[in-house]
Amino acid sequence: MSGLADRKCARVPKGSPPLAPEAAERLRAEVPSWEIRAGKVLARTFKFADFRSALAFVDRVGALADAEDHHPDVHLSWGKAGIELTTHSAGGLTDNDFILAAKIDRL
Amino acid sequence: MSGLADRKCARVPKGSPPLAPEAAERLRAEVPSWEIRAGKVLARTFKFADFRSALAFVDRVGALADAEDHHPDVHLSWGKAGIELTTHSAGGLTDNDFILAAKIDRL
Repeated sequence: MSGLADRKCARVPKGSPPLAPEAAERLRAEVPSWEIRAGKVLARTFKFADFRSALAFVDRVGALADAEDHHPDVHLSWGKAGIELTTHSAGGLTDNDFILAAKIDRL
Repeated sequence: MSGLADRKCARVPKGSPPLAPEAAERLRAEVPSWEIRAGKVLARTFKFADFRSALAFVDRVGALADAEDHHPDVHLSWGKAGIELTTHSAGGLTDNDFILAAKIDRL
């Protein structure tokens, strides 16, 4: 079985169903540093030595997001980058969120 | 009188007083696209055509912030960069926040 980080994000047509909670929890176990918030957002906060290092990380996440055409919400502050993933077109979590999380973990 | 954007952010020792509300409002009038939130945060949201353009803008804000040693909170999402400025060492707004806002407007 190939890992999440080796998969590609797929196009999710508007109105697609999100993952059921149990399916989402199974995928979350593969990216254990991430937490599911409000049942539909996959979130992780990364810490850094300063603003510049946090921003450099966000730049790499941005390149990844463009390559996968799946984009996070990012909260950047001094020494910290909070990443939130969700699939707007499904109104919740899909495989794409866990795939991108695994790729971000690998950065 | 030189404009806000031409001034440099100064070091604000911990425990310094923040600007009085009237003084903050006078400075805000010089950066009219920004709003004061909860009396102590200066905020503006910038819109862009896509994630990459928003991130490129945040990179320029980050370089400015490092040059001034005054750093914003940034909320980056698809096509949008929300910038929030405050002076933690004063527990509120100081000249630095308005100076950085004016410099960001000039980017």
